[in-house]
Amino acid sequence: MDNNPTIFGAILRGEIPSQRVWEDEHCIAFRDIQPAAPTHILVIPRRYIVSAADFTDADVPLLGHMMVVASKIARQEGIDASGYRLVMNCNRDGGQSVYHLHLHVLGGRPLSWPPG
Amino acid sequence: MDNNPTIFGAILRGEIPSQRVWEDEHCIAFRDIQPAAPTHILVIPRRYIVSAADFTDADVPLLGHMMVVASKIARQEGIDASGYRLVMNCNRDGGQSVYHLHLHVLGGRPLSWPPG
Repeated sequence: MDNNPTIFGAILRGEIPSQRVWEDEHCIAFRDIQPAAPTHILVIPRRYIVSAADFTDADVPLLGHMMVVASKIARQEGIDASGYRLVMNCNRDGGQSVYHLHLHVLGGRPLSWPPG
Repeated sequence: MDNNPTIFGAILRGEIPSQRVWEDEHCIAFRDIQPAAPTHILVIPRRYIVSAADFTDADVPLLGHMMVVASKIARQEGIDASGYRLVMNCNRDGGQSVYHLHLHVLGGRPLSWPPG
């Protein structure tokens, strides 16, 4: 993470504060500072991955872990029964704003369709 | 998949046709019949999983694989450089329409924010 120039690199290094809701060996999760829903949390890997465009088979365990962590966080936040949306943006058309991989967990209100 | 009562169960069993773009031992992917973007593909596991609310640590390999497959499909569709959005809806607030797990791959146009 030392070579991660993004704001999420700074959050991982503790240089910028964040409201953490999860922390383990592989990833951390914290509240989005510009929430798009009553519950809006970002799950990010500790390892520096730029975007989904870079995924390889070697990333399977980490990505699967991030999805399960997102599900556990939803339970922790009490939005699992009411429902939520998991979103990952890749590059320009995806609306990716920070070029360190992140998975959005959005809930606490009905999410409409299409998703952007 | 034999006990899967959803429309995706019928697609997996070949009872309903689909425009498949990916097929392997663990998952299949096909074009959404109500596309919300020029490229709109659904990645679904062969195993019957209702929603993200049911994830456990045992699902890590399958979920990670689905994410990597989504990334490979985006490359195959030529939307990896322009960008795309991965979306998974869970339960009512998430807007889940079919209760068999599915991961949306959306691209070919700019996706706006918030994502629903």
